Amino acid sequence: MVKVGILNVTGYAGMELARILHRHPGVELVSVTGRSLAGQKLGDAFPHLRAIDLTIAPEVDRSVDVAFAALPYGASAEALGPLVKSGVKAIDIGSDFRLKSVTEFETWYKVKHPHPDLIEEAVYGVTELHREKIAKTRLVANPGCFPMGAILGLAPVVREGWVEPSVIIDAKTGVSGAGRTADAAYGFSELNDNSSAYGLGGHRHEPEMTQELSAISKKGDVSVTFVPHLVPMTRGILGTCYATLTTPRTQAQVIELYKDTYASHPFASVVGKPPATKQTWGNNDCLLYPIVNEKKGRLVVVTALDNLVKGAAGSGVQNMNVMLGLPETAGLESLAIYP
Amino acid sequence: MVKVGILNVTGYAGMELARILHRHPGVELVSVTGRSLAGQKLGDAFPHLRAIDLTIAPEVDRSVDVAFAALPYGASAEALGPLVKSGVKAIDIGSDFRLKSVTEFETWYKVKHPHPDLIEEAVYGVTELHREKIAKTRLVANPGCFPMGAILGLAPVVREGWVEPSVIIDAKTGVSGAGRTADAAYGFSELNDNSSAYGLGGHRHEPEMTQELSAISKKGDVSVTFVPHLVPMTRGILGTCYATLTTPRTQAQVIELYKDTYASHPFASVVGKPPATKQTWGNNDCLLYPIVNEKKGRLVVVTALDNLVKGAAGSGVQNMNVMLGLPETAGLESLAIYP
Amino acid sequence: MVKVGILNVTGYAGMELARILHRHPGVELVSVTGRSLAGQKLGDAFPHLRAIDLTIAPEVDRSVDVAFAALPYGASAEALGPLVKSGVKAIDIGSDFRLKSVTEFETWYKVKHPHPDLIEEAVYGVTELHREKIAKTRLVANPGCFPMGAILGLAPVVREGWVEPSVIIDAKTGVSGAGRTADAAYGFSELNDNSSAYGLGGHRHEPEMTQELSAISKKGDVSVTFVPHLVPMTRGILGTCYATLTTPRTQAQVIELYKDTYASHPFASVVGKPPATKQTWGNNDCLLYPIVNEKKGRLVVVTALDNLVKGAAGSGVQNMNVMLGLPETAGLESLAIYP
Amino acid sequence: MVKVGILNVTGYAGMELARILHRHPGVELVSVTGRSLAGQKLGDAFPHLRAIDLTIAPEVDRSVDVAFAALPYGASAEALGPLVKSGVKAIDIGSDFRLKSVTEFETWYKVKHPHPDLIEEAVYGVTELHREKIAKTRLVANPGCFPMGAILGLAPVVREGWVEPSVIIDAKTGVSGAGRTADAAYGFSELNDNSSAYGLGGHRHEPEMTQELSAISKKGDVSVTFVPHLVPMTRGILGTCYATLTTPRTQAQVIELYKDTYASHPFASVVGKPPATKQTWGNNDCLLYPIVNEKKGRLVVVTALDNLVKGAAGSGVQNMNVMLGLPETAGLESLAIYP
Repeated sequence: MVKVGILNVTGYAGMELARILHRHPGVELVSVTGRSLAGQKLGDAFPHLRAIDLTIAPEVDRSVDVAFAALPYGASAEALGPLVKSGVKAIDIGSDFRLKSVTEFETWYKVKHPHPDLIEEAVYGVTELHREKIAKTRLVANPGCFPMGAILGLAPVVREGWVEPSVIIDAKTGVSGAGRTADAAYGFSELNDNSSAYGLGGHRHEPEMTQELSAISKKGDVSVTFVPHLVPMTRGILGTCYATLTTPRTQAQVIELYKDTYASHPFASVVGKPPATKQTWGNNDCLLYPIVNEKKGRLVVVTALDNLVKGAAGSGVQNMNVMLGLPETAGLESLAIYP
Repeated sequence: MVKVGILNVTGYAGMELARILHRHPGVELVSVTGRSLAGQKLGDAFPHLRAIDLTIAPEVDRSVDVAFAALPYGASAEALGPLVKSGVKAIDIGSDFRLKSVTEFETWYKVKHPHPDLIEEAVYGVTELHREKIAKTRLVANPGCFPMGAILGLAPVVREGWVEPSVIIDAKTGVSGAGRTADAAYGFSELNDNSSAYGLGGHRHEPEMTQELSAISKKGDVSVTFVPHLVPMTRGILGTCYATLTTPRTQAQVIELYKDTYASHPFASVVGKPPATKQTWGNNDCLLYPIVNEKKGRLVVVTALDNLVKGAAGSGVQNMNVMLGLPETAGLESLAIYP
Repeated sequence: MVKVGILNVTGYAGMELARILHRHPGVELVSVTGRSLAGQKLGDAFPHLRAIDLTIAPEVDRSVDVAFAALPYGASAEALGPLVKSGVKAIDIGSDFRLKSVTEFETWYKVKHPHPDLIEEAVYGVTELHREKIAKTRLVANPGCFPMGAILGLAPVVREGWVEPSVIIDAKTGVSGAGRTADAAYGFSELNDNSSAYGLGGHRHEPEMTQELSAISKKGDVSVTFVPHLVPMTRGILGTCYATLTTPRTQAQVIELYKDTYASHPFASVVGKPPATKQTWGNNDCLLYPIVNEKKGRLVVVTALDNLVKGAAGSGVQNMNVMLGLPETAGLESLAIYP
Repeated sequence: MVKVGILNVTGYAGMELARILHRHPGVELVSVTGRSLAGQKLGDAFPHLRAIDLTIAPEVDRSVDVAFAALPYGASAEALGPLVKSGVKAIDIGSDFRLKSVTEFETWYKVKHPHPDLIEEAVYGVTELHREKIAKTRLVANPGCFPMGAILGLAPVVREGWVEPSVIIDAKTGVSGAGRTADAAYGFSELNDNSSAYGLGGHRHEPEMTQELSAISKKGDVSVTFVPHLVPMTRGILGTCYATLTTPRTQAQVIELYKDTYASHPFASVVGKPPATKQTWGNNDCLLYPIVNEKKGRLVVVTALDNLVKGAAGSGVQNMNVMLGLPETAGLESLAIYP
């Protein structure tokens, strides 16, 4: 059995990694870390994980074969650097290796990158775009929760040059995306029955989208207008992508393109009705619903996923599976919990 | 005291009219109707209205001076037609007099219009655009809940020609917008903790937006791409409008334009931080937050309102106040209930 | 106009006082305080209050005629003591003057009482029980949100000796009862779609219930088993009181007793169907639904109220009205916002 | 592989059975029925089940080895009768075989029982009480969602005679307990941010509790006062049981009793902190938290479970496992989805 560790199990992404890895048939979760809760039994800190008999440690067990880091920016790279260099395969659920330009990283995150030398070999972990590279790398930069849907939603048409290289992504996220945080602004009474936009001055997930879509674009660099919105649900991201068709396309043509693109990908599903976020609750699917308005020359693509699964821990495990040569779906077969 | 009646008090807009009118200092609510609940005391049907001592009647009392109709499409016009012709001032909270083209109406609503002769004199009830005309009319077509925010959000820049006449409106609505409906799809278990897009093939509120924005546009007819989304809250619409600037504008210029436009309007407020829908819970404000991305040449305008108040009953009362020469804010001064 | 001040406007009870007092016809809100936000405009800190043109001050204006304190325990008494002694009428929304025994207070709250000399003259502010005393006092101890419903729900039968003096109160509260708090345990993601019991080892509102019910009991001291539960709503307390009838009583007898008891009280309403908390959203009603199980000899009383209104700010204003000789309902006439 | 069918897959319990059985290692789901949706692909009707390649049939395939019925009362017995008699093992998720007295059944449900001859051999499916009998029967009457928690919560002390045989159960349920229903009263706008009591005149789950607790009681028939409450969450039941100790017991004694009772039962867990319903989201645990108030001589037991899993489909599968001699936990190992 492959031995796996989680750096920072105490946030929502870390907890979700533990939940998924515990049931994974090909790996064994052997080490979980956390600063503030170090020394506690995992099940005392998080009762839903009490079936996992581990104690939260201050540092990861160095004997792991694979390490997931779910740490704040800066901290991920710092902790993973030595591990990667010592031969551990690593998946960074955090944001430290996503941007290929150190300058971009340091501009958006306002910290100095602790291991810029590792950036180049890090593979951006949208498995559906980079499966071959992920299979060979020792370091995966797992995408942000918003970029996952946006990139899967637009990649087919951007790659083919079917849309103008200027797109709008209007995303609605559940609150767990903000993490397990002690901030009055994220209190239940503040957010229940309430919706708002944020990040209007620029959100850190935008450069990821720009980088990845531009890299595959047939029409040059892509300009991304991205506005995230907080809506009162715990999990889920609903992304609505707006693009302008370069030449007329029928609904049938677009559907065919999307179905072809994702035919061999178990976790990107083109669906026949507008998806609801809850259809992915707790599982690793990204649902895609492209629709053409022929009269207006517009393409709208609606995407739905669970921000903690396909948007974080689940796609991390999917990437681990590819890195280890396991079936891509191992540990990720559960159906969504609905309603 | 002006005598007021509500046609169909049994839906959410009708109930909200009753709530507001009961506290209105200048009018007296004397008659409320409802088919299925006729004969019941209003307070037995809707306990929060038990302070209003009225029985739900099958037909409105013909002695009213003002009638609000909160009926389904087709039914509103049919019921209001004779009332208007007999001298009653009418506000249609429904959709029958919003579209100026009978053909458009019949195309979108698939019913024959019962009183096409009244369409021309009906004034579209965005008070902030048509206050003078409303003051003189006997028939107001109250706007749809989505158009209210979209039109207030884009009118200033469309009128000045500051943006290209092709706009995107991505709206997130609370569930009460669907009315008090016995449909499993609107059940709590289906919608709680869940979000989805709908109306992707075309929503009936789009032609209203197109009509009203085109009518004031300096750059010709406006093409509106409108996608509504259902999010798990009871009240509120958060609208995010995307437009492309025709020439560079600074944030300061845009703010000045919006503040000037709405300076004399008590219920359209330009705010300094992205608004949250709950800041309007139960009151008649529409909050507006325009923001320019100078580098990308984009304007984003975020709007927030309570769909049952400024999006329906509240703006209806606002229009009634203007029709009757009362203070525009009469009966509408309550602060939002927060949290 | 009577000049009113709020000590600590920055919590939910304080904000709610501001909302209600702003529309009160007989008083003027002239001073609001808050430590962390001192110097900010009230409307910048809390956008839904932007119609109130006040700046948050570090200390209350000493010229006020009436002061509300919405401060943590210990702090309320400390701040109100000097004010009361200088002639200001005071309503403590906090808990410092509720318990008549200093020992009890110090046992439950683990702080030394700063003004024990004022405890005796403080009147416990269930207006429906103590209206005459409240009219004459200069210091009202506003009840806790849970005791309000429990006391109103059980007072009629405890006073008459119709039930055994051992009762169970199972309460379900919305999250705003915990205040505006930066605690991860009250985060949206933790509490949404989730319910739990708390305070099982003893909750500070229990001695209030015991004191007040025992004081009016015909059968000696009342033993109260009180278990509060957190349910995922923002506002509202649903209280279910269980008691054992001492002698058989019919449903009609019990209803008559409750109706008689509260006939002259505008904010305690005996209702004919089980009440829902949302029927009191934003208003000052306490709804009461007693039901007898004749076969089992049990009485169950269901109560519903808005914890921030009848459970805090609203009953505070009701008490102020009585203290000032104003109509008891002044400023409190708004109907509940539903749905 | 054992072949399994679901009668009425279209309600929430039926859908949940499909979700769980699809991942079950020892059985194959081969047939699902539903009246209104017959002919539809399961995944078209319920997108989260699209991995299950079955068409909804009007009648169950008679070749199944095991049948689950998730039908309304009356209909379950009618459909299962012939199947059981033809040798199919059956689990009735419905209520037709729970009450041992036909008279009681017909009094509470107001229908004639279609197969009273099968009632005697039906085993009431609280696995933790009746595992041996379940292993030998061909017909299990799966408990109601409320009785499951109430019985597990009180069985240890009722059996030992540690409490008076008069208990109170105050339960808070998520809305999915009402099923997938097209009733305006269960609409999102009605129930969101709202709580209420119901069934105050008598709820059909009460006779089940009375029957089962009385059957094991050391102190004679148990009188159960049961009040269910609807709280705004999709899944979960929080039950708070109140009992009076017959002789003083310490907290340690009670904990030991509960731990001993459930030591060999994988899905009844005595926990050290008050449980939250969400700690069981989507899984088959029943969490139990007993607490003694020594001074008052009261025992309070808080229970938490997922009404659609341990309260319906999950315990049904647990019972099937026992009937088939499979490991009791087969197909039920998933951890709860949190948050």
